[in-house]
Amino acid sequence: MHPSLDQAMAESAERVAAVMHTLLPGLRPDAAGVLHTSPPEAPLWEAMRYGALGGGKRLRPFLVLESAKLFAVDLGQALRTAAAVEFVHCYSLIHDDLPAMDNSDLRRGKPTVHKQFDDAIAVLAGDGLLTYAFEVLADAETHPDAAVRCALVTALAQAAGPAGMVGGQMMDLVAERTPFDLAETTRLQRAKTGALFGFSARAGAILGQAAERDHQALTGYADAMGLAFQIADDLLDVEGTEAATGKPVGRDAAAGKATFVSLLGADAARRRATELADEAGRSLAPFGAAADNLKAVAQYVVNRQS
Amino acid sequence: MHPSLDQAMAESAERVAAVMHTLLPGLRPDAAGVLHTSPPEAPLWEAMRYGALGGGKRLRPFLVLESAKLFAVDLGQALRTAAAVEFVHCYSLIHDDLPAMDNSDLRRGKPTVHKQFDDAIAVLAGDGLLTYAFEVLADAETHPDAAVRCALVTALAQAAGPAGMVGGQMMDLVAERTPFDLAETTRLQRAKTGALFGFSARAGAILGQAAERDHQALTGYADAMGLAFQIADDLLDVEGTEAATGKPVGRDAAAGKATFVSLLGADAARRRATELADEAGRSLAPFGAAADNLKAVAQYVVNRQS
Repeated sequence: MHPSLDQAMAESAERVAAVMHTLLPGLRPDAAGVLHTSPPEAPLWEAMRYGALGGGKRLRPFLVLESAKLFAVDLGQALRTAAAVEFVHCYSLIHDDLPAMDNSDLRRGKPTVHKQFDDAIAVLAGDGLLTYAFEVLADAETHPDAAVRCALVTALAQAAGPAGMVGGQMMDLVAERTPFDLAETTRLQRAKTGALFGFSARAGAILGQAAERDHQALTGYADAMGLAFQIADDLLDVEGTEAATGKPVGRDAAAGKATFVSLLGADAARRRATELADEAGRSLAPFGAAADNLKAVAQYVVNRQS
Repeated sequence: MHPSLDQAMAESAERVAAVMHTLLPGLRPDAAGVLHTSPPEAPLWEAMRYGALGGGKRLRPFLVLESAKLFAVDLGQALRTAAAVEFVHCYSLIHDDLPAMDNSDLRRGKPTVHKQFDDAIAVLAGDGLLTYAFEVLADAETHPDAAVRCALVTALAQAAGPAGMVGGQMMDLVAERTPFDLAETTRLQRAKTGALFGFSARAGAILGQAAERDHQALTGYADAMGLAFQIADDLLDVEGTEAATGKPVGRDAAAGKATFVSLLGADAARRRATELADEAGRSLAPFGAAADNLKAVAQYVVNRQS
């Protein structure tokens, strides 16, 4: 990784983690404002914290913060938005890891939420994080203008919902039984992972009430970067190790599922990922050097080892 | 049921169902606006429709519509809000019925979503309905004032989230292993079912930008009505039949879980439910005859057979 990107991502991850900690304290007052020292709902909060605060690259929050810098958005507003999108990402991992879904025991090198707690708590922890993300966005602390907060809620719901991430996960289930071609695989990945990258990259433009052409530039960036990210993910599933990635590898090939690597071959997939990273960078031309970190992210996601 | 309430609830359920049908069409354009005739995400939309459109009393939507009438709220706004809260209620049933949770095969006299489809699709259908509810609320069609839409998103997220319904479901899991007393059982039910009734009853006051004392009156109503509803539910679990309720009965007693009936005895529980229904009605005194349907609902939930 480029040293300055490395440092910028680490700083961003630390700042976002601090806000996520504050938003997910270990004990919460109930609806009546009473703080119970060991309430029966405590395992839910513990599981939400375990699923959300246990590390990860915090790539989506980084996109939010870098996008926010382009429009001189207040850092506190950007951090709350970054935390919300990471809550949604973490909820999706918790549900995706369930026995009913991917049945994964390992995530970020640790037991998955349903292994650490149980299946029922994992369902609820995901539901809780998803719901809480919208509460965070709709709060006046996220932006003084309610129209901006509504735009954030709308954009996140569309990116995460049935026309976005959840729809992509449904396609992914079908892809286990049906041979998908390149167009179908591309459409699947745009929904499953691309839509949330798109929200993250556009979040600064929403918070900064930027012009439509800025939204379009960031959407173009996120689309190319998201596909590059997924191709790299498919390459890691073939060529990576569990030790390096912190999660099981070789799952797609074992399931006979179409991936960019199975469809294109490893070499062509690698070339395509590089092309897409360059394309992502070119989309950011209007922002000049202010977007250098975002351009570097597109290169990073292609070259990462985990 | 009181004949006029019967008719009002049936009319409300029909109107809300029509809006829910429109919001959940059988085929949806993708993010690029393309309508696929048989897209791989189709089973998700089918499962969402199956879980949301298959009947039910539509009690929460009725509360929204009746609350909206008190403040002369536009019917279209009230119907969209009613649909959103019903999507959240239906998502909670889909997840609650999962093998990892209550493991129920029957709901409203039909196979539950995970029996009709599969466990993975049921997880995603619940996630999709929950996310979509916030998209519906944040849309300008729900209210022209973004501050009102944000207030709806905040109130629904708080009612449905970890400090509300999801937290109540977590308490419910703990209650299967720990003997809860009356105070704990009351707190559990306020979170698990009361919070969403509270949102529904207050929704009209939010849409109508009503005074704080109106919010308080409706909150008092929903709190007493919700507890009366739950006591009646516990009585039905002991005294009802699967044929009448459309879902399995005797589950709580079999699980050894504390209920209002096990804690108070059936006779005292019945008396308490009647007292609470009367208390709910008295909370609505400031609204006079305009709140007669809401008062009748509180009596109805105590006397219902399903």
